[in-house]
Amino acid sequence: MSAFTDLWHDISDIGGTDKTGYIRFAWTAAEWELRTWFRAQAKLRGLEYEVDGNTTLWATWNPSGSSETAVVTGSHFDSVPHGGAYDGPLGIVSAFLAIDRLRAQGVVPARPIRIAAFAEEEGSRFGIACLGSRLMTGVFDPDRARALTDRDGITLASALEEYDFDPARLGPDPTRLRDTHAFVELHVEQGRALAVPVGIGSSIWPHGRWRMDFTGEGNHAGTTLMTDRHDPMLTYAFTVLAANKEARVLGAHATVGRVAVHPNATNAIPSRVTGWLDARAATSETLGTLVSSLSAKVATRSAKDGTTVEITAESTTGEIGFSDALVRRCRTTLGERTPVLPTGAGHDAGVLSGVVPTVMLFVRNPTGVSHAPAERADDEDCEAGVEALAAVLEELACR
Amino acid sequence: MSAFTDLWHDISDIGGTDKTGYIRFAWTAAEWELRTWFRAQAKLRGLEYEVDGNTTLWATWNPSGSSETAVVTGSHFDSVPHGGAYDGPLGIVSAFLAIDRLRAQGVVPARPIRIAAFAEEEGSRFGIACLGSRLMTGVFDPDRARALTDRDGITLASALEEYDFDPARLGPDPTRLRDTHAFVELHVEQGRALAVPVGIGSSIWPHGRWRMDFTGEGNHAGTTLMTDRHDPMLTYAFTVLAANKEARVLGAHATVGRVAVHPNATNAIPSRVTGWLDARAATSETLGTLVSSLSAKVATRSAKDGTTVEITAESTTGEIGFSDALVRRCRTTLGERTPVLPTGAGHDAGVLSGVVPTVMLFVRNPTGVSHAPAERADDEDCEAGVEALAAVLEELACR
Repeated sequence: MSAFTDLWHDISDIGGTDKTGYIRFAWTAAEWELRTWFRAQAKLRGLEYEVDGNTTLWATWNPSGSSETAVVTGSHFDSVPHGGAYDGPLGIVSAFLAIDRLRAQGVVPARPIRIAAFAEEEGSRFGIACLGSRLMTGVFDPDRARALTDRDGITLASALEEYDFDPARLGPDPTRLRDTHAFVELHVEQGRALAVPVGIGSSIWPHGRWRMDFTGEGNHAGTTLMTDRHDPMLTYAFTVLAANKEARVLGAHATVGRVAVHPNATNAIPSRVTGWLDARAATSETLGTLVSSLSAKVATRSAKDGTTVEITAESTTGEIGFSDALVRRCRTTLGERTPVLPTGAGHDAGVLSGVVPTVMLFVRNPTGVSHAPAERADDEDCEAGVEALAAVLEELACR
Repeated sequence: MSAFTDLWHDISDIGGTDKTGYIRFAWTAAEWELRTWFRAQAKLRGLEYEVDGNTTLWATWNPSGSSETAVVTGSHFDSVPHGGAYDGPLGIVSAFLAIDRLRAQGVVPARPIRIAAFAEEEGSRFGIACLGSRLMTGVFDPDRARALTDRDGITLASALEEYDFDPARLGPDPTRLRDTHAFVELHVEQGRALAVPVGIGSSIWPHGRWRMDFTGEGNHAGTTLMTDRHDPMLTYAFTVLAANKEARVLGAHATVGRVAVHPNATNAIPSRVTGWLDARAATSETLGTLVSSLSAKVATRSAKDGTTVEITAESTTGEIGFSDALVRRCRTTLGERTPVLPTGAGHDAGVLSGVVPTVMLFVRNPTGVSHAPAERADDEDCEAGVEALAAVLEELACR
């Protein structure tokens, strides 16, 4: 077995399997097991282990006792429901292996190299993506965070207390941010945009989530004349197809993957259908065009169906560009032929890029599947990822 | 206040309101309150009160001490989730008032007149519509009934035991059926098919429920190229619109009011969407055409979407004709101009019509809404319904 296969195998049965997918929500038993594994890996390597007030884990390698600012790498452990094995954990496992590699090569970095494991990146439990990094950078209010509730009505504050974390310690951490020279996040690529093992991330597409409330008239499915209906399911169905068409035309991405129906009974015309639109595009302008064009078409259809529709932005993010200087240094280190590509997915790297120089490395995804059990990366490509990450960390920490 | 308004008011705040709708599921606190009310009304009138093994309530008026077979009338108390006030209870309240009316007129019927309140007509709790009447007539297996579970995983057997009913007593009741001369169910009309206060039901449309499983490939909403997607939500949306169109073209009814999505996350292309089709038509042939034509169109679309679809009949019922002789006698009694109409809705009367002569009376619905809070009947029309029911009961029990 290769070094990668060996270490990867350590965590591959925590919180799921690659058949059923993984449920590794923040501050649950599965994530706790991954945290325990992280601590053991740090100790095993003699790294300095810490947990900060936002429950982010840190492991620092500083063989020269340097007091320079650190080069930070890492990712997150938590998953979407029934997610893949790689989204998140690959960046953490690769970070430990990159340090092993540098150490084996006799490298003594001039700056500390620090591994981070952020909490609640997917927002699968409390609904806010990149919550750990948002709290650290001060863009999310800790009072609001403490009051967030999961599907079972458990507050984030009590979820933390269950694992003896102190919710009062959530919040901005300017000291640690000031102590960060650069952040590099290695991540599995999530589409089929990479034809070689490793690429460099240049930016994150503008994206947003919109809640779409369709209201009609609840009624009896058997007796209501077709001409007397005000069925919001029809307007919803039209919207799903129109969003897909609009995205194809504009070269953007649009998805309706979540829906709630009231009363959701076989023999009742619904009174209310709520769908959530996830849309992303290369520019904010294209994204705006997609949503406004879709809204206009849906309004017309809604009038025809005798329903009403309300479209509300739940979150929108403009384009996030990573550090041009870091992208250039990665390219010099990894070879000028290394592909540089944007991504449609959000990451802690996107949040941190607002305050520290940030870049991402992507490892090829042969299936193009992510956020689902079939998410994969070949072991050889993962080895190449570790090699690339080690080279970039050496470049940033030694030169 | 009229006699109707007065008695109706008695139960109008049990298990909900006409703003929020009613949740009066079988063998729950709300339905128990309605059962208690039934018993009190029977006692108040000196009627013979019984509860049978299927938990159906009975109240018999037999002032002449007749040993003839009984004329039975009645309906059910249970509701769909957030249903209307009238669907079910109107038939029971009207039955008590019809007896009051006959008694006040000095009528002494030659046959007993018996009021029935059936359980779980909507199937809202355990999924099987007309469960009480199906058990009574022997078309539903009591072992299977006892093992049914509700949304909370409670078996029907333990739901019964909670109210001290004996689940071992569920099952066919041929003795009581043999003792039934005719069954008349008064019910609120559920579309806008009646332009006068009262009509006579001739038949129930053939209808069925089909489960439609759409399977695709779960994936990341942000990063998956539109051309790489196998999104079952698209095939589902197409199906919703196609079912509606097909029903309009054929003069049938089709509804998709219930859906389940996996994993139902905003940022994930679903791997699986399940929708339920409710379809009804004037003839079994038209219903068959609707489903086969829809299936063909959906298969074509599914191939285009790169998804698979499986359509499975969960239940289908052919046309149920009520007794021609009873329809004629109702018409003679109520006037030759009284409209005779089919209905798209299932009823205990449909189940009983297989074994005893059965007919229905419908009371006008001004909104055309049913199975929803806006379900209404005007008090004057309800009074007219009571008058019509009394006349029909007198005709059947005295002549």
